[in-house]
Amino acid sequence: MFMRMSFTVAVAGASGYAGGEMLRVLLGHPEARIETLTAHSSAGNALGEHQPHLRSLADRILAPTSPDTLAGHDVVVLALPHGASGAVAAELAQRDPTTIVVDLGADHRLSNAADWEAYYGNAHAGTWPYGLPELLHAGESVPTKQRAVLAEATRIAVPGCNVTAVTLGLQPGIAAGLIEPLDVVAVLANGYSGAGKSLKPHLLAAEGLGMAQPYAVGGTHRHIPEIAQNLRVAGAPDVTISFTPTLVPMSRGILATATARLVPGTDPALVRAAWETAYADEPFVHLLPAGQWPTTAATLGANTALVQVAVDERAGRVVTVTAIDNLVKGTAGGAVQSLNVALGLPETLGLPLDGVAP
Amino acid sequence: MFMRMSFTVAVAGASGYAGGEMLRVLLGHPEARIETLTAHSSAGNALGEHQPHLRSLADRILAPTSPDTLAGHDVVVLALPHGASGAVAAELAQRDPTTIVVDLGADHRLSNAADWEAYYGNAHAGTWPYGLPELLHAGESVPTKQRAVLAEATRIAVPGCNVTAVTLGLQPGIAAGLIEPLDVVAVLANGYSGAGKSLKPHLLAAEGLGMAQPYAVGGTHRHIPEIAQNLRVAGAPDVTISFTPTLVPMSRGILATATARLVPGTDPALVRAAWETAYADEPFVHLLPAGQWPTTAATLGANTALVQVAVDERAGRVVTVTAIDNLVKGTAGGAVQSLNVALGLPETLGLPLDGVAP
Amino acid sequence: MFMRMSFTVAVAGASGYAGGEMLRVLLGHPEARIETLTAHSSAGNALGEHQPHLRSLADRILAPTSPDTLAGHDVVVLALPHGASGAVAAELAQRDPTTIVVDLGADHRLSNAADWEAYYGNAHAGTWPYGLPELLHAGESVPTKQRAVLAEATRIAVPGCNVTAVTLGLQPGIAAGLIEPLDVVAVLANGYSGAGKSLKPHLLAAEGLGMAQPYAVGGTHRHIPEIAQNLRVAGAPDVTISFTPTLVPMSRGILATATARLVPGTDPALVRAAWETAYADEPFVHLLPAGQWPTTAATLGANTALVQVAVDERAGRVVTVTAIDNLVKGTAGGAVQSLNVALGLPETLGLPLDGVAP
Amino acid sequence: MFMRMSFTVAVAGASGYAGGEMLRVLLGHPEARIETLTAHSSAGNALGEHQPHLRSLADRILAPTSPDTLAGHDVVVLALPHGASGAVAAELAQRDPTTIVVDLGADHRLSNAADWEAYYGNAHAGTWPYGLPELLHAGESVPTKQRAVLAEATRIAVPGCNVTAVTLGLQPGIAAGLIEPLDVVAVLANGYSGAGKSLKPHLLAAEGLGMAQPYAVGGTHRHIPEIAQNLRVAGAPDVTISFTPTLVPMSRGILATATARLVPGTDPALVRAAWETAYADEPFVHLLPAGQWPTTAATLGANTALVQVAVDERAGRVVTVTAIDNLVKGTAGGAVQSLNVALGLPETLGLPLDGVAP
Repeated sequence: MFMRMSFTVAVAGASGYAGGEMLRVLLGHPEARIETLTAHSSAGNALGEHQPHLRSLADRILAPTSPDTLAGHDVVVLALPHGASGAVAAELAQRDPTTIVVDLGADHRLSNAADWEAYYGNAHAGTWPYGLPELLHAGESVPTKQRAVLAEATRIAVPGCNVTAVTLGLQPGIAAGLIEPLDVVAVLANGYSGAGKSLKPHLLAAEGLGMAQPYAVGGTHRHIPEIAQNLRVAGAPDVTISFTPTLVPMSRGILATATARLVPGTDPALVRAAWETAYADEPFVHLLPAGQWPTTAATLGANTALVQVAVDERAGRVVTVTAIDNLVKGTAGGAVQSLNVALGLPETLGLPLDGVAP
Repeated sequence: MFMRMSFTVAVAGASGYAGGEMLRVLLGHPEARIETLTAHSSAGNALGEHQPHLRSLADRILAPTSPDTLAGHDVVVLALPHGASGAVAAELAQRDPTTIVVDLGADHRLSNAADWEAYYGNAHAGTWPYGLPELLHAGESVPTKQRAVLAEATRIAVPGCNVTAVTLGLQPGIAAGLIEPLDVVAVLANGYSGAGKSLKPHLLAAEGLGMAQPYAVGGTHRHIPEIAQNLRVAGAPDVTISFTPTLVPMSRGILATATARLVPGTDPALVRAAWETAYADEPFVHLLPAGQWPTTAATLGANTALVQVAVDERAGRVVTVTAIDNLVKGTAGGAVQSLNVALGLPETLGLPLDGVAP
Repeated sequence: MFMRMSFTVAVAGASGYAGGEMLRVLLGHPEARIETLTAHSSAGNALGEHQPHLRSLADRILAPTSPDTLAGHDVVVLALPHGASGAVAAELAQRDPTTIVVDLGADHRLSNAADWEAYYGNAHAGTWPYGLPELLHAGESVPTKQRAVLAEATRIAVPGCNVTAVTLGLQPGIAAGLIEPLDVVAVLANGYSGAGKSLKPHLLAAEGLGMAQPYAVGGTHRHIPEIAQNLRVAGAPDVTISFTPTLVPMSRGILATATARLVPGTDPALVRAAWETAYADEPFVHLLPAGQWPTTAATLGANTALVQVAVDERAGRVVTVTAIDNLVKGTAGGAVQSLNVALGLPETLGLPLDGVAP
Repeated sequence: MFMRMSFTVAVAGASGYAGGEMLRVLLGHPEARIETLTAHSSAGNALGEHQPHLRSLADRILAPTSPDTLAGHDVVVLALPHGASGAVAAELAQRDPTTIVVDLGADHRLSNAADWEAYYGNAHAGTWPYGLPELLHAGESVPTKQRAVLAEATRIAVPGCNVTAVTLGLQPGIAAGLIEPLDVVAVLANGYSGAGKSLKPHLLAAEGLGMAQPYAVGGTHRHIPEIAQNLRVAGAPDVTISFTPTLVPMSRGILATATARLVPGTDPALVRAAWETAYADEPFVHLLPAGQWPTTAATLGANTALVQVAVDERAGRVVTVTAIDNLVKGTAGGAVQSLNVALGLPETLGLPLDGVAP
């Protein structure tokens, strides 16, 4: 049994896709009391103008995003552009040290300042506890997972959506020493909501409908050092990864095909067992029965990750496919899952497991 | 306050789209205990092979559909092909008269056997209480709605999905005497899940992606007499309706544009007020603020109907647009809403109000 | 036999969707020599940056749009925002009176200045010969079509894409006196390219994928007076039309469902014959065999309009469905068809008849 | 100059996607005279019932597929299921040895019977000249391409669509010795038409709309030995490839992300030049300017392959992205290109270079 403990929440950036999804997930959470919604240029508008699907909150007025509007809540969620979280979080820490701050942006994910500077270009805002409860810590004598770290956290850096998908796909093999962390290759099919509400020509419906297009090809995507960081936590001494996302005509979803070389001499029969062991007790990460393959449709709206693994003996590679909803398990759902841990609530509380399909 | 009352459920036809959605909605219902799932040709399979998104029930084995497997539950939901419900329901009534039977199919919707025979061609199975709680009964001295009828029901005929959309769009104007029920014209944009899992060439993804196609043009669609029936209940002495559905590249959703002539001499300023009055207290039917238009995205996964109305004075017509999720408010959600009423539970219990968007 | 006559062309607005499609169609035309491409903010760029599909012209540099760059060609095509064509055309007329100017925009379509001002709000730029060769002129003793007018034209006002679809659907019944021009109702499923490359949130792929949304509901769309104008040319003494476009998840295409009341006392058996007669000799407008319905996929990339008609005797309405590619028959293809007529070339020269499907 | 030489064609399998696209391409070819269309279960129907977009041929009646109907043409195109071409081709060879037979199926692609049997399971029908004119033959003293072989051919085995995309992406680096042919990884985003008109649940629009799903994961796809064969022709001593196709919501198109390790010690600056050299004179394979990335939309309906290459120095891999239309460059367009070579016609005759976009 747990003590029911309701908490108040403020969501900064409520007019965007990540902020909207955070609200949708929190609306299904029995202990969350959504008190304050803020926005930048949309401040003063009703939420219904920007998030017409959130009927429960349609009449709420967006306050301006500032420490003044955000302070005084048990939990503050930051759904802000990269680089904007650091200052707000610092000010909130001063005003109210017990507030739990959840950052959906990238600012506090990387533990290595040099990685941050190489990929993001400005000064590093510091490292927060990383919000992926299922992340394996394989170097320890008794293997643990990241949820042990989150149980003590008052700051949570929510992972990048692509990072969650690729990490969940590969980490069991890394932790078990079955696959090589050098020369990992990941190619992703991504829904357009991952790009946010940016008004750019290549994100128009007339362009995106019926076509596939890659972006950030050739090692430039900012999620690369974050994936490498996770695989190191899972036991890789060093990591190289070729990572290519491709936009395909869906609003939500990530289908990540991530492959790595089978360690020479490894018995292929051991592979599936490593993934089974890693996820046997996980409520949201499901290894599918052999022969079934993940689809993004099966995870739409849910905090679920579906994983499958196969050994291609001719190619000498393990191929993993992971499907998530980029806005749920990849962002807002993963955030609430970590928040539940930090609050001492049941980890699954209020989180959807079943997708909306077809 | 209400007394919490859990109920057991069997769902017949659990491998199809309507049956799957019924399960998804029931999984979110705090009082439903899903006990039996049945199927025809898929009996013996795990549900996860057919509904990979329903993680909570992935390992459940499908029983064969028969009175033997369905009997003995508080509630039985029939998600069967047209014509198959009548015999099953009769047998269940004999075995267990207190069971509530919810029919997602068409067999028991029409009150007029001649209508049934004209549009469906076989013998009429009889008429059940109609499962649209918001249906206006305008002919009565104190106007009521259909939920009063449902409060006493042990049989529920769930409306056709298109019927729900068109009825909700037009009925306030009919009941208020502001629009003419003759010469109604409705054209719908429909998602493909409305066609079920039928393996037909024109339903293939390669065909449907990126194109629009009409079907059942020229007055042949079976939902026409059902819409007319509802508008008569709402106060129309007689009804004619030109109804054209069109398949567009979305999996779910109905966007119904339904127009009717403004009664000559009517003050256009009265129109909006009639819709406001009709839906002011409705939890799931929302008239949008003036200037906002419904989108199917805003209702995806939710039991919500979004309605807007405009007067085109040049054309002399009132234009209504209604968006619903065909599988939720149009099928499984509407069914559970009616079931809640029949069970004496709060009408909104366990039903999602907020859509999954973008 | 005709004398081969090649012509030089300049296209203004070559970086947009209409301008790009004009180039694509002209590239397939054996007599067109594409000499000058112009743009506004993209001037100086290579065309390949904006129209990556036009491989034949990828290295062409966009000139600034001005009379200086456009003058001196046999044909000038204006693919400019509404209101911009008038001044450019006037200047071109002064410099080179024999140049044929084709306006893809709305400025010169309407014959009635009051209509223009009511729907567009600024001063009317004047009326040009209307670029729909198949438009019926039913009032004349020997019925003719608009191509007779175009044969003498040096100015061509290309119709609105929605207008083409609705006009082709309804005009045979109007001209034959079989349907009533009052109380026409048209609802359209529209692809996103019809909205142009405008950077607006509701046009983003993340929003548009998987949903349907209406716009310009209630009689405000600017294509309404143009449809009415055409139906009057086809023989209607007066016209009222309720017109609702809806955006659906496709890049191209219009599926127009347009209905009108059957004139009381009309023999329904006469209906199909009227459409057959109207289009028997048309190369690009095809009445489908009874029982087949138009799909936008079948017209993609082609200058073809597919039409079907049915009589709904219960509703007392004729229902027509017309499918076109909004950018081809609805814009650039229709423009080149009219241009062929004006140039004395075979009307079908260089125009695709077969769609790209599936 | 070339001598114009018209040829007669029969297309077997005209009711399917590959056969329909062959007809569409041939309709644009100035020398092709389409004489006979055949089908299996649809024999006797008008083509318009199955290919409503092919307006030019809508009234043609489908003959039964047999040597009797196919014999007597200059060219016979076989668009038949795997395994069906061998017997038909043998019979045609006996009757008319000068007929050119083009096989769109897999039966005659592989040069190694053991490969065929490992992946297809039945007896190998023999090897025909391979229909990829751009295939590099790097082992020869003066490097040539496959078009030299095709110039003498009377049989053409058209490549698999995925094979074309991956081969074009990687072969310049293989031929130049810059990338390693071992440990190639390719992941593809595929449109649904690649799966043909098969009536399978996972190919329904309701399923495919808005989701991504992998298939043939883990080294089982039949295109793998064919890619390896091509890379060996291009100079690889041995090849291993991890290959994963994923279905994404588009009707047409392949976006192939194919990566290989940079040979240790290679100067990354040499990479782009190798691709430039390989494709400088190719009419249909275009290396995009640095910084532009291929999209499938830009190739829709065209015989064009768009290629880009980048070096990811951190990962030590070259990443190539290739976009094609699977039905054009990947099937029917590539076939006609090879046929032009075999007939001594200009290779580009009648083939579309510009895509249909947006």
